[in-house]
Amino acid sequence: MTKAQDELVFLPLGGSGEIGMNFNAYGYGPPDDRKWIVVDCGVLFGREGSVPGVDLIVPDIGFLEERREDVVALLVTHGHEDHIGAIPHLWPALRCPIYATPFTARLIASKLAEAELTGKAKLHAVPPGGTLTLGPFEATFVPLTHSIPEPSALLIRTPLGRVLHTGDWKIDEQPIIGPGFNRSALEKIGDEGLLVLTCDSTNALVAGASGSEESVRAPLTELIRTRKGRVAVTAFASNVARLDTVAKAAKKCGRTVALVGRAMKKIVEAAQNSGYLKDFPETVDEELAADMPASKVLYLCTGSQGEPRAAMTRIASGDHQSLALGPGDTVIFSSRIIPGNELGIFALQNALTALGVEVLTAEDHLVHVSGHPAQDELKEMYRLVRPKIAIPVHGELRHQSAHARLAKAMGVKTVVPGVDGQMLRLAPGPVEAIDEVPFGRIHVDGTVLVGEGEGLARCRRSLSFAGIIAVTLVLDEKFRVAAEPALVMEGIPDEAREAVREAVENTLKRYRPKRDGEADLCELVRRAARGAADDAWGKKPITRVVVTWV
Amino acid sequence: MTKAQDELVFLPLGGSGEIGMNFNAYGYGPPDDRKWIVVDCGVLFGREGSVPGVDLIVPDIGFLEERREDVVALLVTHGHEDHIGAIPHLWPALRCPIYATPFTARLIASKLAEAELTGKAKLHAVPPGGTLTLGPFEATFVPLTHSIPEPSALLIRTPLGRVLHTGDWKIDEQPIIGPGFNRSALEKIGDEGLLVLTCDSTNALVAGASGSEESVRAPLTELIRTRKGRVAVTAFASNVARLDTVAKAAKKCGRTVALVGRAMKKIVEAAQNSGYLKDFPETVDEELAADMPASKVLYLCTGSQGEPRAAMTRIASGDHQSLALGPGDTVIFSSRIIPGNELGIFALQNALTALGVEVLTAEDHLVHVSGHPAQDELKEMYRLVRPKIAIPVHGELRHQSAHARLAKAMGVKTVVPGVDGQMLRLAPGPVEAIDEVPFGRIHVDGTVLVGEGEGLARCRRSLSFAGIIAVTLVLDEKFRVAAEPALVMEGIPDEAREAVREAVENTLKRYRPKRDGEADLCELVRRAARGAADDAWGKKPITRVVVTWV
Repeated sequence: MTKAQDELVFLPLGGSGEIGMNFNAYGYGPPDDRKWIVVDCGVLFGREGSVPGVDLIVPDIGFLEERREDVVALLVTHGHEDHIGAIPHLWPALRCPIYATPFTARLIASKLAEAELTGKAKLHAVPPGGTLTLGPFEATFVPLTHSIPEPSALLIRTPLGRVLHTGDWKIDEQPIIGPGFNRSALEKIGDEGLLVLTCDSTNALVAGASGSEESVRAPLTELIRTRKGRVAVTAFASNVARLDTVAKAAKKCGRTVALVGRAMKKIVEAAQNSGYLKDFPETVDEELAADMPASKVLYLCTGSQGEPRAAMTRIASGDHQSLALGPGDTVIFSSRIIPGNELGIFALQNALTALGVEVLTAEDHLVHVSGHPAQDELKEMYRLVRPKIAIPVHGELRHQSAHARLAKAMGVKTVVPGVDGQMLRLAPGPVEAIDEVPFGRIHVDGTVLVGEGEGLARCRRSLSFAGIIAVTLVLDEKFRVAAEPALVMEGIPDEAREAVREAVENTLKRYRPKRDGEADLCELVRRAARGAADDAWGKKPITRVVVTWV
Repeated sequence: MTKAQDELVFLPLGGSGEIGMNFNAYGYGPPDDRKWIVVDCGVLFGREGSVPGVDLIVPDIGFLEERREDVVALLVTHGHEDHIGAIPHLWPALRCPIYATPFTARLIASKLAEAELTGKAKLHAVPPGGTLTLGPFEATFVPLTHSIPEPSALLIRTPLGRVLHTGDWKIDEQPIIGPGFNRSALEKIGDEGLLVLTCDSTNALVAGASGSEESVRAPLTELIRTRKGRVAVTAFASNVARLDTVAKAAKKCGRTVALVGRAMKKIVEAAQNSGYLKDFPETVDEELAADMPASKVLYLCTGSQGEPRAAMTRIASGDHQSLALGPGDTVIFSSRIIPGNELGIFALQNALTALGVEVLTAEDHLVHVSGHPAQDELKEMYRLVRPKIAIPVHGELRHQSAHARLAKAMGVKTVVPGVDGQMLRLAPGPVEAIDEVPFGRIHVDGTVLVGEGEGLARCRRSLSFAGIIAVTLVLDEKFRVAAEPALVMEGIPDEAREAVREAVENTLKRYRPKRDGEADLCELVRRAARGAADDAWGKKPITRVVVTWV
């Protein structure tokens, strides 16, 4: 018997077909003895409309959990929630060491501490550019540029070829924090021969280039300079370069920065502890800022996405503990709108407008640049690293598809969009889907993890559409009705409630214990109640009928 | 006693502070004997996240219902749902005659027929440019340009001054359907002296101009020409000019149009019956189109907003009765994204992509222009009609506020954004808010109208977040527990269900009928159940405890 052949495989369990919840695994070895490394472990944020009551969604990684002893490491490209947010929820299933650059590691450490996993999870900080040997893999953290410090692609070397997994990136010559985009390092990777590029698709539908972080500096400064009242700027807290830009613009305009919101203070501290923001202008407490002249202060606030509990939302609803804005004041949204957040953000902007505040956004002013590669940047990446195989990941299907077209146009021979749960053999031989592994989504529902397939959120979505009728029948041992039925109805208009009550009573009146059985009675009552609601209201509530016996 | 003075007043009951649900009233006469005309009567579409189970929202017009005999007419500017959609729901409260131009009247007639109000509601078609005398008012339908045939501003003449209420409009020199924007007619209105301009704010945050419908023609034709497979174009059915553009582009490319979706067929029929689309190319039934070569057919489909039951959604999910798309085929979204519909539309585009279809949108290609005035167009309107008073309506607060700034910059002395429920005296004397009338929103919930204040949708939203626990206790006349409690729990994970069941049982075990009363027992059980859910799950479901007696 010949020894089974070594293979290099790729298996995404999250982050393909959507933006968020990045979770990718690379395997190496013969089919029955593969070692795995995982790249990123992120969350997707729940949506009230589709999955009500679900804050976060994480991937189902049962396939790897079963092979836990063969998972040699979790490598993290950067510190955004869609790349690190699932670590507290999923690390207990893997229990492998975690590797990340120092700033990213600091953010992960904070998450582990909150989940009381400090000390249990082995977390290692790797310097940007650092290389690790992990079982059959050698992995190098290759510095890129993005909208958070220390974004790193992972160059994964195996005996069967090398993979560059980009994580999130853009081309930024002057990213403000950290070194500029390093073309020659990438070109060298190309020169040495690259088998696979696994790459960010987020902006593959956007023509041109994303623009440098530096380009925001002058317009933002000019905008602040024209303002006389209070100015508040809201931005993604993790965008440390933007915080620096805003703080320096404020200083140039004679304003002192007050940090507002927990995440804002936390990230500035993490950045400074990692050696960034060394010349960040001195800040003032928000309480003290309240006593300063309006033209001398700039508030840097969380809540650019209209998050219900964030600073900006509380300011807009007038119940922030120390900060009140009104006529003559300005709020600048130095951020993009994450799809799905439109109505919440517009409601926030309307609430600020109602206070008399002038709202300025990236729609009208150059106060934001994207952190993801637009088409020109993707093309440049393909020119630099020249992969034999391109795997578009991290994007909805429409983005992955546009990315695939671009990669083909750039002359990449094999282009295979990543598909969650689909195991691709990258080498040896032609790329081939060799397995479909069980995968799915897990809802973080309150404090409990619930598989999407269990339908809990779907059930609540039904409740939100047509409410519920719960009928309790009290029967004696001869199946006779022994008490008035008890009805609980929620989310149902009065007209329908009356009709349901009547229908249940009529059904019980017509009921003959000897003729009809208990099971039949429940079904008769259920149909009568649901039908009455439908007749009166045009909707069919969830209807439950239970029996208790005296 | 002197006779009370005549006043001209404005009262919006919908459409200020949001885009949709336009409902505006103008009153004339002394305070105790005012006559009213209503301009437009539209709906707002419900949102699953905020008002689950609510399809449509209409304004609460109780104030005018109480004065029904003094409401002399409903005048309708154009046929979009946010201007006519509430007529079937609210006309019964007003019972006044309805006036609109012929195409708009045809759409209204169809709505009245569906609501079985034909013959009851007196509906009058007025030719574009036509003038009516309505009590103390004289009203002229002034042709404008917009994204539907026969858009009309209303010039309302009273002894105290004249009002131009624009409805929706843009400046389009070549609107394809109907005459181009008539500057001289508007200039003449300005020359004759205009007291008030009540004007569309939708695009007041957009720089520049919206662009002519004609500008879409060439790019759309070129795009279709490059396609070899089937092409489907989805657009707003009411945009009759766009339908004409698409059909003619199809013809130029040797393709025959098939209309797909009920609304599409209905609007083409209504347009042709009103004398439009006379040279609309001959269409083919969708069933027959299925047998034609892929390169010879173009499908014009409903569903550009990802509406669940519309043609495009059924095509994408592969369950359309006669139309299947796949690799090599193209779908063009010749439409904008209505805010709030982003995720649904992207899901639709992803589903089409998954079928292998290439999706082209207004993001990348000039296949859509807006129907609302951007800043340059608003400025032009102010230059032409030169009102003494500007009332920005029809827009969220952020749009109304931007519109107000623009109007002031254009030299309008008095700028007062419309506020729903606020009655403004426009003349005589300076503009002044003289009354706040009760107003609000009414939900079309199934087949029932429910006031927003009743909280029915809010209750269902709570259900969607944390589900429900319904406990039925069976007690005898001595308050003793006479049967097992019955529990219905929905939307609650297993862990919490177990904990709740146990908590209820323990509470009943500790219960002493003589010591504790019934009311107390219910409250004890409610708190125990809710607390157990919170402990096990971190959420507090709606909890109802009811008693039935044996």
